[in-house]
Amino acid sequence: MEIAELAERVLAGERRALSRAITLIESQRADHRARATELMEHLRESDRQALRIGLSGTPGVGKSTFIESFGLMLTGQGKRVAVLAVDPSSARSGGSILGDKTRMEQLSRDRNAFIRPSPSQSHLGGVARRTREAVRLCEAAGFDVVLIETVGVGQSETVVAEMSDLFLLLLAPAGGDELQGVKRGIMEMADLILVNKADGDLKATATRTCADYSGALRLLRKRPQDPPGYPKALTVSALEEQGLETAWDEMQALTGWRRDEGHFDARRADQARYWFAEEVRQALLARLQAPAAREAMQALSDAVAEGRTTPAQAARDMVTRHLGG
Amino acid sequence: MEIAELAERVLAGERRALSRAITLIESQRADHRARATELMEHLRESDRQALRIGLSGTPGVGKSTFIESFGLMLTGQGKRVAVLAVDPSSARSGGSILGDKTRMEQLSRDRNAFIRPSPSQSHLGGVARRTREAVRLCEAAGFDVVLIETVGVGQSETVVAEMSDLFLLLLAPAGGDELQGVKRGIMEMADLILVNKADGDLKATATRTCADYSGALRLLRKRPQDPPGYPKALTVSALEEQGLETAWDEMQALTGWRRDEGHFDARRADQARYWFAEEVRQALLARLQAPAAREAMQALSDAVAEGRTTPAQAARDMVTRHLGG
Repeated sequence: MEIAELAERVLAGERRALSRAITLIESQRADHRARATELMEHLRESDRQALRIGLSGTPGVGKSTFIESFGLMLTGQGKRVAVLAVDPSSARSGGSILGDKTRMEQLSRDRNAFIRPSPSQSHLGGVARRTREAVRLCEAAGFDVVLIETVGVGQSETVVAEMSDLFLLLLAPAGGDELQGVKRGIMEMADLILVNKADGDLKATATRTCADYSGALRLLRKRPQDPPGYPKALTVSALEEQGLETAWDEMQALTGWRRDEGHFDARRADQARYWFAEEVRQALLARLQAPAAREAMQALSDAVAEGRTTPAQAARDMVTRHLGG
Repeated sequence: MEIAELAERVLAGERRALSRAITLIESQRADHRARATELMEHLRESDRQALRIGLSGTPGVGKSTFIESFGLMLTGQGKRVAVLAVDPSSARSGGSILGDKTRMEQLSRDRNAFIRPSPSQSHLGGVARRTREAVRLCEAAGFDVVLIETVGVGQSETVVAEMSDLFLLLLAPAGGDELQGVKRGIMEMADLILVNKADGDLKATATRTCADYSGALRLLRKRPQDPPGYPKALTVSALEEQGLETAWDEMQALTGWRRDEGHFDARRADQARYWFAEEVRQALLARLQAPAAREAMQALSDAVAEGRTTPAQAARDMVTRHLGG
């Protein structure tokens, strides 16, 4: 299929075209990369904007149940919802978040929902780039909300925050001591903390945990992109579908304020700059993967290991003679 | 001074020449980098080998006192000892580890000791490269032991382990719960854990902490570069100069075994490969810092932020048109 036609079908909201487009951008083949870049350029003019919501939470906090309940609430309101994932570990562990759609049984059968597992690549940079472009594809295809799920592994939260308009942190009810388990850097990225499992026996604990986090959030440095009272912590029960509408109202209120104040567009512009710089760095380092470069690297690495030259001199040779410096 | 002459003076063990050589390799000027590379190439043939000992420990464990006591013990045996540091935070915080030589008052006055603070650069990659080359300079200048100190900030421990023959982890006596405070990845790098402050009121706690860590070490996966019984945990008192000779004996026993089994040379060869690859990556990314490249990056970044192009297309333009791809 011609790229122009694929682009039109994506813009027409055709699910199969969207899947195909995402497969194209996930490919690592050089000719596919060129076509993917062309596709993204075709979609650039589309001014459709989804609300991009990043969602992080460690295993066990009920992320799948939350996405299922929250997603169904949104589709129930007539909204189209896409769910993507950033999980650099999936390639290694074999198992992948979102890989098993049965985890979100109802949502995955919903005509207004689109669920796509994390691309199976071993390094975060690759997963990040592909997911960022997949977000844009879903947006162009007319989805109203794009949820980007991640588990808190290494830098994956930063990566997801860099492609989201809102960053949610989903937590389980816990004793006061465990509050420290959440890294400060993650807290500082959160726009909304949702304490899940506020139901049954855990309800009281969830309320207390929520109060603890509200207190912790107030101690953080004020960010220019927040109106008074934000970021805030709320309790939800994904299982009993409680608190989800309040959480959605908060997301809309916060987003509305940011749009009015110019923060929304400014953040997207900053993110575009970030991804551009990141793409350039990746493209530079990718030169080391070309067959001739790999061969030269190997020969020089052997020379260094055997003491026939120094790391600095060998690097200089590599860069000037083999990488056109 | 000609580089050949500087190299000869370093090889003759002249302290002023060594200081000057380190200043040269720390410089970021392109012409200095070229001269530094030439200098390292001159010293390549020197087959002098110091024992390179990496030492990590959070503030408060008594690192300076340990280095002072341990270093004086070694110089007392007629050995020449150099102390370097990897501290990427020093440039930002202003304060630098080893910056204040009065912290090691006696050692810094010792004719057989050489103390050099961390180069003041803001990113770890730069500090790492400089320190690695400084280690080699000290070695060529005839030092028997090179101690490389770091605080446990981010990746700095990995960087120090990648330039050391032995990696020591210095810890303070602590309750069982705090055992978890040491990241598993750091434990896995350690060749020897030293529980300091085994003196006075803390002696019993230190002994218990040492037993806890001995147990924890036994649970780690066996590494091919260790003889039976290693890595191990010991108690020391830097203040009362207790246990330092035993620790030194252990270091020598472990190093002797590794030399005999070929692990010592194999590790150095692997490290040389690692630093070569790292130098190449840094050199590639450094192309983005050239004035013309910065200008092009800025213009393309603006175009991306304003939606006139996509991050992927702009990156492609950058790489093909401005970075000779």
